[in-house]
Amino acid sequence: MAHIQLPDGLPGILGPMAYSPLTTKPLNELAEVLLRTNASDSLTQGERELIASYTSRRNDCFFCSTSHGAAADYLLGRENQVVAQTWANPDTAPVSAKMKALLAIAGCVQQGGKQVTPELVDAARAEGATDRDIHDTVLIAAAFCMYNRYVDGLATWAPQDPAAYADMGEMLAIKGYVHATEAQLA
Amino acid sequence: MAHIQLPDGLPGILGPMAYSPLTTKPLNELAEVLLRTNASDSLTQGERELIASYTSRRNDCFFCSTSHGAAADYLLGRENQVVAQTWANPDTAPVSAKMKALLAIAGCVQQGGKQVTPELVDAARAEGATDRDIHDTVLIAAAFCMYNRYVDGLATWAPQDPAAYADMGEMLAIKGYVHATEAQLA
Repeated sequence: MAHIQLPDGLPGILGPMAYSPLTTKPLNELAEVLLRTNASDSLTQGERELIASYTSRRNDCFFCSTSHGAAADYLLGRENQVVAQTWANPDTAPVSAKMKALLAIAGCVQQGGKQVTPELVDAARAEGATDRDIHDTVLIAAAFCMYNRYVDGLATWAPQDPAAYADMGEMLAIKGYVHATEAQLA
Repeated sequence: MAHIQLPDGLPGILGPMAYSPLTTKPLNELAEVLLRTNASDSLTQGERELIASYTSRRNDCFFCSTSHGAAADYLLGRENQVVAQTWANPDTAPVSAKMKALLAIAGCVQQGGKQVTPELVDAARAEGATDRDIHDTVLIAAAFCMYNRYVDGLATWAPQDPAAYADMGEMLAIKGYVHATEAQLA
């Protein structure tokens, strides 16, 4: 049972988002600009969702890791099992050397901002990471340290079957965060 | 030196905020709606800044703990040293029993969402905390786990003399986050 009275039937973050529309607006807009971008000179949308899912997994947040993992799976090709392999070990996952280095930075951010060392940043640059890649990786990982704590700090309910998340991931990937929340809350 | 190239002379979060205007907009709007509210049925603006500063102190984020501490000091009365005493020990700080219970929840959120127990929530309710108080406390603490990681994960520069923050705290308290950033970035 959630720690506060939330609308019935809304999984994960959607419960508190329905409870508090004023804070929901910037929370969704942040996810939208951070994750739903395919900048030609930076991370793809699939890579952004992978960083979000990996950070959430390290924070042991079932709802966020699974829903953003489903979005990443949809974008990166479900058959490649990139998300499952990244959760297991980013160093051996089928992602680029640049992404491995950025996932290492995200893993440090998850523990605390000061864990990110110049050596880790240099290693990412050596694999082609730009300032924009490093900035966005740090902010995505930091943002999911917020979303994860919001979801679990209020003890929200979430479906336990990962299969239930496939449609959600596809909708997040295609239609985005502002739209997805409005649709579910309507 | 910061991990990425940031504009000179902007302390703490203002450097990355100038670097990335698209993400800055929702980051500021979130701070504005979460912290600059004086709901008659919930936490005062000073109490909100105190939760932000306390969470940031626990995350060892000098810029955020000191700047939001200065805002809380301005709002709660600098002579009362509420911030310094809360940093030292919230249980003996000169705050209400409800705030002590909410600060305990914020301290758990700082460690991880699942650290918040029904017992802690019940204890806060016994001191008069409402659903809105609990929701806002969890989200303020969660949000500062993001802001703190953004500031320190990019190794931003910050003035080390706490006295340099008094004016910043007063400006944040009076004029708010959207305004303050725009003024500093102009």
